[in-house]
Amino acid sequence: MSSTAQSLNPLPELNPSRRLLLGPGPSMVHPRVLKAMSTPLIGHLDPEFLVIMDEIQESLRWLFRTTNTLTLPISGTGSAAMEAAIVNLVEPGDQVIVGVNGVFGSRMASMVERCGGRAIRVEIPWGKPIEPERIEQQLQTCQPVKAVAIVHAETSTGTLQPLDSIGQLCQQHKALFIVDAVTSLAGMEVNVDDWHIDACYSATQKCMSCPPGVAPLTFSENAVAHIRNRKSSCTSWYLDCSLISDYWNGTTRTYHHTAPISMAYALRESLRLIQEEGLEARIVRHQRNIQALIAGLRTFGFEFLPTIPYQLTTLLCVTLPSFIDDLKVRKALLNDFHIEIGGGLGSLAGKVWRIGLMGESSREEHVLTLLSALERLLSRETDVPTLGTSIQSALESFQQSNNFK
Amino acid sequence: MSSTAQSLNPLPELNPSRRLLLGPGPSMVHPRVLKAMSTPLIGHLDPEFLVIMDEIQESLRWLFRTTNTLTLPISGTGSAAMEAAIVNLVEPGDQVIVGVNGVFGSRMASMVERCGGRAIRVEIPWGKPIEPERIEQQLQTCQPVKAVAIVHAETSTGTLQPLDSIGQLCQQHKALFIVDAVTSLAGMEVNVDDWHIDACYSATQKCMSCPPGVAPLTFSENAVAHIRNRKSSCTSWYLDCSLISDYWNGTTRTYHHTAPISMAYALRESLRLIQEEGLEARIVRHQRNIQALIAGLRTFGFEFLPTIPYQLTTLLCVTLPSFIDDLKVRKALLNDFHIEIGGGLGSLAGKVWRIGLMGESSREEHVLTLLSALERLLSRETDVPTLGTSIQSALESFQQSNNFK
Repeated sequence: MSSTAQSLNPLPELNPSRRLLLGPGPSMVHPRVLKAMSTPLIGHLDPEFLVIMDEIQESLRWLFRTTNTLTLPISGTGSAAMEAAIVNLVEPGDQVIVGVNGVFGSRMASMVERCGGRAIRVEIPWGKPIEPERIEQQLQTCQPVKAVAIVHAETSTGTLQPLDSIGQLCQQHKALFIVDAVTSLAGMEVNVDDWHIDACYSATQKCMSCPPGVAPLTFSENAVAHIRNRKSSCTSWYLDCSLISDYWNGTTRTYHHTAPISMAYALRESLRLIQEEGLEARIVRHQRNIQALIAGLRTFGFEFLPTIPYQLTTLLCVTLPSFIDDLKVRKALLNDFHIEIGGGLGSLAGKVWRIGLMGESSREEHVLTLLSALERLLSRETDVPTLGTSIQSALESFQQSNNFK
Repeated sequence: MSSTAQSLNPLPELNPSRRLLLGPGPSMVHPRVLKAMSTPLIGHLDPEFLVIMDEIQESLRWLFRTTNTLTLPISGTGSAAMEAAIVNLVEPGDQVIVGVNGVFGSRMASMVERCGGRAIRVEIPWGKPIEPERIEQQLQTCQPVKAVAIVHAETSTGTLQPLDSIGQLCQQHKALFIVDAVTSLAGMEVNVDDWHIDACYSATQKCMSCPPGVAPLTFSENAVAHIRNRKSSCTSWYLDCSLISDYWNGTTRTYHHTAPISMAYALRESLRLIQEEGLEARIVRHQRNIQALIAGLRTFGFEFLPTIPYQLTTLLCVTLPSFIDDLKVRKALLNDFHIEIGGGLGSLAGKVWRIGLMGESSREEHVLTLLSALERLLSRETDVPTLGTSIQSALESFQQSNNFK
């Protein structure tokens, strides 16, 4: 045996610090979901597991507001579901219009190109939504267009993209409509069927409050027909949904790859929690809490990247006033208050914060905890209001929204 | 809101039956690993998580017996790591020799072709190992060969493939050596550096006794040079290890995709348990328990697919005597005794059982539990020995191997 064995330091017991997760994800996980994760495993072909798979699929259809048969969790994180949506539908030479107004639009375009498609990027300044006219123009000039790929809720900028009219344009031009709902599903309205979406994916660690590791994905019957009638094999075997669907939906339940059992347990429990709360109540909760956070943050002089109708109610992109030292404050939040918020990605690095109030992270007490920590930290700087001011504004906002509710 | 919300039946509490998992995986999970899974999450860029990542990487290097820098868990199950090994190294037009003597060799060949490579299949009857001469012949006639891909422990047939001389051949012919160690790592000897392996992957749910969901992968410095100097982009963005390594090994720890935090916790705890036991002791335990199982099964008249030096000590492929009704007995094992064993895949369906004694599933009491259940079930059939006979043989085997130990 090699001597490496002796030189390894024994690992200490796992004992991470307790954190309040208010970044772009992972969000806080409900104790019942954590408990579900520790359930002893059964096999991925056990008749009882097949029932669990059916339950997950039925619940995901409810959550996506769809009747799509091919609705399942991909065995990877959100980016794996993004890749699955694209590699299953895009064949070499296919033209795909991709809306790019943040990191995740760019990522979609890269995936289109890696599997042999041609990405037609519609570039928009970060923080602005994409006007449907820009998509329509490309649909008219670039025939044939296989698909239009759009991010519903840009995690890098906190921007909401209205989808209804783009879905109608896709229908008119017979293009498939691919939508990234990573930061919206289970926190904001997502209507797969009504909005004519052909492929929609999300992630578990955002508004679903489940650990990352599986990722919901749904394909319309039209998308499934494209998958079944491909001229070339899907470039990915692992994500090939024509094979995966035989395991999830086929009468034979043919083994494809070993499903991540414990993550399926967690996902099922998080879906149960969403059902118990009700989707409409959950969406209102996300609105109410982000409004209170916005009211509080305004008292410090913070502004926000997207304009109001395009602000997500799940993730807030805060532009930093000049007196804020990004890294210093975020480090102090983490070390002194055990609160995680996110920094900017790409060209927004150092210029914005991304504060997520998603799923279990979207709670009144978390809003107040973050504001009070910021008050204490920023009171060291000039030009900040007296202690309690942001809390007062947040509480007034809660009062108003309760009346509204 | 749609009326689907009302029509959904509430999910009952998660309450799967207790199972003894003695199939080809998932294996039993140690209670400490289940407990680790329920640990509250920290962020994937939290300084404490970066330490956990380093600990996992260092432990995986120890387990793979390698000094490879690029050693990490892929965010998917074993097949995702297989795909990562292949799509990172194989470019369009590359020739790859693939040993095919079971389902997983075929899967590798399919992945080579899907990312644009040419798979040169060396086909061998299922249950037989691949003679190095067959590989050498192809290395000589098919120049240039980018890589040779071999399964170390075929999960579909229980066959062990000696690797040392194939590794030397690859070195001589400057071909990369890709090895599937899904059913051997942490249960049998795997020597990545000594055997000149350039890419080796495994799965967590076999001999590591961790739930499925992440998958260990290591690349040699030579393989990394190939990845860095590719002429074309990797067809997969999600599995592109030139990007993933910036997160796992780069000084900037650049975000790629959100790591599956809870699965990382589980993997870390399973690595701790392996270290506490010691790799050599663990390998001996697997040998001792499978020998006892073999001794017991022989008393029923069972035979085994691979001949003795090529039998895995982690997974046993049992050829069924004519008096056994495959489905009927496996169903009774599951329903009456809560024991899962595996059936045959592909051309072996209905003809073999696959009994896994891997990680926590490889314990004396599980061997005895399975044999006693089989005795009770098969006593209904003719030509089986009196009750207790197989147990007696297993106990004698344990006695002998304890002396040996």
